[in-house]
Amino acid sequence: MTVGDEQDRAVAAHLGHVELLAPDAAATVAFFTDVLGMSLVAQSERSAYLRGWRDYERYSLKVTESPAAGLGHIAFRTVSAEALDAAVRALTAAGFEGKWVDGDEGQGTGYTVRNGDGHAFELYFETEHYVAPREAASVYRNQAARSTSRGAAVERIDHVNLASPDVRASREFAQRHLGARLSEQLLLPDGTEIGAWMRVTSKAYDLTYIADPARARDRLHHVAFRVESREEVLRAADIFTERGCFIELGPAKHDIGSTFFVYVYEPSGNRIEVCAGGYLIFAPDWTPAVWTLEPGERFQAWNTPIVESFFAYATPDVSGIG
Amino acid sequence: MTVGDEQDRAVAAHLGHVELLAPDAAATVAFFTDVLGMSLVAQSERSAYLRGWRDYERYSLKVTESPAAGLGHIAFRTVSAEALDAAVRALTAAGFEGKWVDGDEGQGTGYTVRNGDGHAFELYFETEHYVAPREAASVYRNQAARSTSRGAAVERIDHVNLASPDVRASREFAQRHLGARLSEQLLLPDGTEIGAWMRVTSKAYDLTYIADPARARDRLHHVAFRVESREEVLRAADIFTERGCFIELGPAKHDIGSTFFVYVYEPSGNRIEVCAGGYLIFAPDWTPAVWTLEPGERFQAWNTPIVESFFAYATPDVSGIG
Amino acid sequence: MTVGDEQDRAVAAHLGHVELLAPDAAATVAFFTDVLGMSLVAQSERSAYLRGWRDYERYSLKVTESPAAGLGHIAFRTVSAEALDAAVRALTAAGFEGKWVDGDEGQGTGYTVRNGDGHAFELYFETEHYVAPREAASVYRNQAARSTSRGAAVERIDHVNLASPDVRASREFAQRHLGARLSEQLLLPDGTEIGAWMRVTSKAYDLTYIADPARARDRLHHVAFRVESREEVLRAADIFTERGCFIELGPAKHDIGSTFFVYVYEPSGNRIEVCAGGYLIFAPDWTPAVWTLEPGERFQAWNTPIVESFFAYATPDVSGIG
Amino acid sequence: MTVGDEQDRAVAAHLGHVELLAPDAAATVAFFTDVLGMSLVAQSERSAYLRGWRDYERYSLKVTESPAAGLGHIAFRTVSAEALDAAVRALTAAGFEGKWVDGDEGQGTGYTVRNGDGHAFELYFETEHYVAPREAASVYRNQAARSTSRGAAVERIDHVNLASPDVRASREFAQRHLGARLSEQLLLPDGTEIGAWMRVTSKAYDLTYIADPARARDRLHHVAFRVESREEVLRAADIFTERGCFIELGPAKHDIGSTFFVYVYEPSGNRIEVCAGGYLIFAPDWTPAVWTLEPGERFQAWNTPIVESFFAYATPDVSGIG
Repeated sequence: MTVGDEQDRAVAAHLGHVELLAPDAAATVAFFTDVLGMSLVAQSERSAYLRGWRDYERYSLKVTESPAAGLGHIAFRTVSAEALDAAVRALTAAGFEGKWVDGDEGQGTGYTVRNGDGHAFELYFETEHYVAPREAASVYRNQAARSTSRGAAVERIDHVNLASPDVRASREFAQRHLGARLSEQLLLPDGTEIGAWMRVTSKAYDLTYIADPARARDRLHHVAFRVESREEVLRAADIFTERGCFIELGPAKHDIGSTFFVYVYEPSGNRIEVCAGGYLIFAPDWTPAVWTLEPGERFQAWNTPIVESFFAYATPDVSGIG
Repeated sequence: MTVGDEQDRAVAAHLGHVELLAPDAAATVAFFTDVLGMSLVAQSERSAYLRGWRDYERYSLKVTESPAAGLGHIAFRTVSAEALDAAVRALTAAGFEGKWVDGDEGQGTGYTVRNGDGHAFELYFETEHYVAPREAASVYRNQAARSTSRGAAVERIDHVNLASPDVRASREFAQRHLGARLSEQLLLPDGTEIGAWMRVTSKAYDLTYIADPARARDRLHHVAFRVESREEVLRAADIFTERGCFIELGPAKHDIGSTFFVYVYEPSGNRIEVCAGGYLIFAPDWTPAVWTLEPGERFQAWNTPIVESFFAYATPDVSGIG
Repeated sequence: MTVGDEQDRAVAAHLGHVELLAPDAAATVAFFTDVLGMSLVAQSERSAYLRGWRDYERYSLKVTESPAAGLGHIAFRTVSAEALDAAVRALTAAGFEGKWVDGDEGQGTGYTVRNGDGHAFELYFETEHYVAPREAASVYRNQAARSTSRGAAVERIDHVNLASPDVRASREFAQRHLGARLSEQLLLPDGTEIGAWMRVTSKAYDLTYIADPARARDRLHHVAFRVESREEVLRAADIFTERGCFIELGPAKHDIGSTFFVYVYEPSGNRIEVCAGGYLIFAPDWTPAVWTLEPGERFQAWNTPIVESFFAYATPDVSGIG
Repeated sequence: MTVGDEQDRAVAAHLGHVELLAPDAAATVAFFTDVLGMSLVAQSERSAYLRGWRDYERYSLKVTESPAAGLGHIAFRTVSAEALDAAVRALTAAGFEGKWVDGDEGQGTGYTVRNGDGHAFELYFETEHYVAPREAASVYRNQAARSTSRGAAVERIDHVNLASPDVRASREFAQRHLGARLSEQLLLPDGTEIGAWMRVTSKAYDLTYIADPARARDRLHHVAFRVESREEVLRAADIFTERGCFIELGPAKHDIGSTFFVYVYEPSGNRIEVCAGGYLIFAPDWTPAVWTLEPGERFQAWNTPIVESFFAYATPDVSGIG
């Protein structure tokens, strides 16, 4: 499938939430509330539900206690109820076997399916528009809640980066079944696809694939949350440093996406990005920016060296096995 | 027409360019090149064509010598060639009499029509994806050109705000014929619409209407250009101050749109905004934020007083007449 | 006294702390801890002691319950114990009647004196270098404590602005007895001094006088606290807005000092500034920048209008009396 | 000499200028004007004189054509003419053989001496307070000129870092003869001094020594120029990247000094820093922050890896010899 074959049919409206698996769930939830400054909106026996102050849905992050770190599932809200039904028909016609699941915490029925690289995707349309309790309400009528002003005080979920044993196949799945469009891609000199940045909104990317170094299935590279400005990313880095959170990379700028970022590991080991900046894509016929990674190349915008672990580590960690 | 009646049919992909009328065209062009830091890409007998460094089309601003300041036209690129044809059919069916026009400077054939409040809209699809000459090319493959690093160095066109004698009718035209969606609106206590902020992308707004204080037709409130960060808006304010450009309002924050802004008058008298920040709208069923302006209210976010001229002035200036 | 007569003798090393009088002391302390993000380090029957995270002394703000808002005293640390003694001798020789007072909360003996305009100044040298408890300690060895990351999270005290019935006399007192140097001044067209910005460090100002509109004695214009960047000032403005704190002026830029600021009233009515930016003065023979305020002039850098209350209000408020 | 032995006698008021030696002087001057945005104020047969827009003296950088890159000299302005004479007497008494030299470009007679590690220091007092020509004058009366708004648009010179074969001896020289005070220092585990950060103003440092890896004499680590904010450092990094200037390290934050920085090599090979942020020291009895570098340690604030060249490279480059 080439870019020219992208569906005109809109499917996903935006990334809705991500479920993270967490061996040390209590510490992970404390990280997201105290350090990232998200709000805990609900808890069940094994899961906690959290939100950024500008997320318009009830939650954007579900943390579930689990033996190993990694991804539970990622969920995209569709542009309409009809688009959800059409997507399920198309998936079924293409031979995928998913299932309808009850939503939780303000979300209606969803359809869950695993793509070829093993990641679980959920599609749903019904959702609750969050109304903050009085003490968290904002004077700004266009904000679901006021900033928590706590820790990094992230605004909202931004994107997910999935490690894939076959980036090309994963990209094609997202283009065909989520209505994703290719914004940028990373190739080896021989043309092998090792990274794909895709969008379902005007943002440069909402869903990203990176080649899994272990060629394993169903692994997570990172989940990203947004702050207002690059200054807020710098501020987050100091908060991480003072609280002993491991910063893997950044603050620095990605060539791809023009994003200003910092990567940190949450206590259960999943990689989390706090980001700002970047650019928007308006062209309906955008030509993807193509970058070729020469062997051994480990530098990017501003000549920032990229640590080896950024390419080697994903969750669940299989480095002990592989 | 209520929000629930908005068209599902996508028409406009994004704001393409604006034509400004300028009695002192030479000074206006100098302002946009030297002070805003845009690049002059072409000139004809009466017009100059300029671009921000991240605009992906050849130009986003046309300055045309004219006896009075004001708006020439605004142009939206459609999502496809088919969407353009469908839009023209719908306009014709609704009784609007437009005409097909040859595009200029990299833009294909467009269709121009005046809506009820007198503003000229152009719709087009064919366009050139700008390729910078070697000396202006960027090392970043996702940028059409490198930042000019000159003056305010604006990135791209952001939105247009039109003064309208009938905001409700203007809003309905944009919803019906441009596929615009209502993001926020401003009402008088009696429910009269005096402002409408609408989007055709994920940005909170691309096209805005504000009640024309003189109830005149075809007047411009402002055209806005984007910079990377709020710090860059502050930097722009110092540049304006040092070069003797009249700052009317800001830097400050709008309640509506959460935008950080500064307004300046270019030498021919048109109001120009340099903006950063704000928020994106992802919900396909976003509930517009409604603000009611109490009589005499002249303050907004952070308690910033709004100068009288911000409500009273538009171009062409009719204050001498009315 | 002209600038050329300034003492070569160093007296004050820096502004140490300010005592604010607060009718609603509990609300005032809550404002400084929760909204400004300072830390409460001690409390006595009528007073609370607070610090910014980078203040190297134990406290920089003392809040004392009192029937009316206003200034208790301001305290400057001297460059040495000898400088303190020499200053007391000079004050005594000049006819001032002060007294030695026991310091509190980590501060040694000080000498308190009222200058001609009624403000109480304290000079002291002995002081405790603050060592943060384990949970507030910073990984950065050059910081007394880690950032509280709470509310505006102000770093340290920056300067005090005192309202004076006779700016010239107040300025001369500071030059003669504190070793202050004049950085900038504000005059009326007839040459009357209505503002003086003075420094005892490399900062453009540590102590400022502004003409008291009521020509009253011993009134406070504002106390200022510092944040890292202009972005942090913008962030503070949102925090003030969301928490219902009255913003009087800003965020904006002062011509004088190049300071980026926002002014807010704390619950007891004292005006507080949060500031960033500005410039440093290194020249030992700096020529003060002189600004003349034309009658009715109410605009400054970036053409920002200055609200009337900024010139009219000081604490204690005498507008009901005068 | 310990910190307690520091002179109470003030000598240097501030860093005045630096002379850089440049094999490719034309390219170096073009870098400082076009990329850093400084202004060329004068030229002689072999030298060019440049200034940052807020430098109050005529120039802060002298670029002299020379066979090898490196330092010509650094010049400190003294607090007074008397302090200059006293410093010369003290140097002479200590056995240093300097000489009086005619100043150039607005600077009066200076005294030049080489300290034990070979660097040439100049002390002077007489200087011209720069008055900008009309087209470069600022509306702000406290600025020597308006911002050039060109390239990185650096404000002023900030500090110099000298490579020394004996950091302890170099530090003692600066304390004894420049009146410098120790702010922070870097030690090896065995107590060997390998870095000293010293101040003559309220800034955390104006003059810095770092151990010369080649144990050579008279080498330069870097010269630093200041911008307004961390955002401006990020902006500078993009400018360097687009213009092909080699970025060695950063943007990132130093533990020491809390400075936000980016290091770049100018065309003749000298390392240049653009910096913002940091902290001020007000305590007359400041206790230096001591950092110990464990063997192999190459990370700092935010876990940023430090490239090997940052420790290994200085000018003139002797790596080909040593």
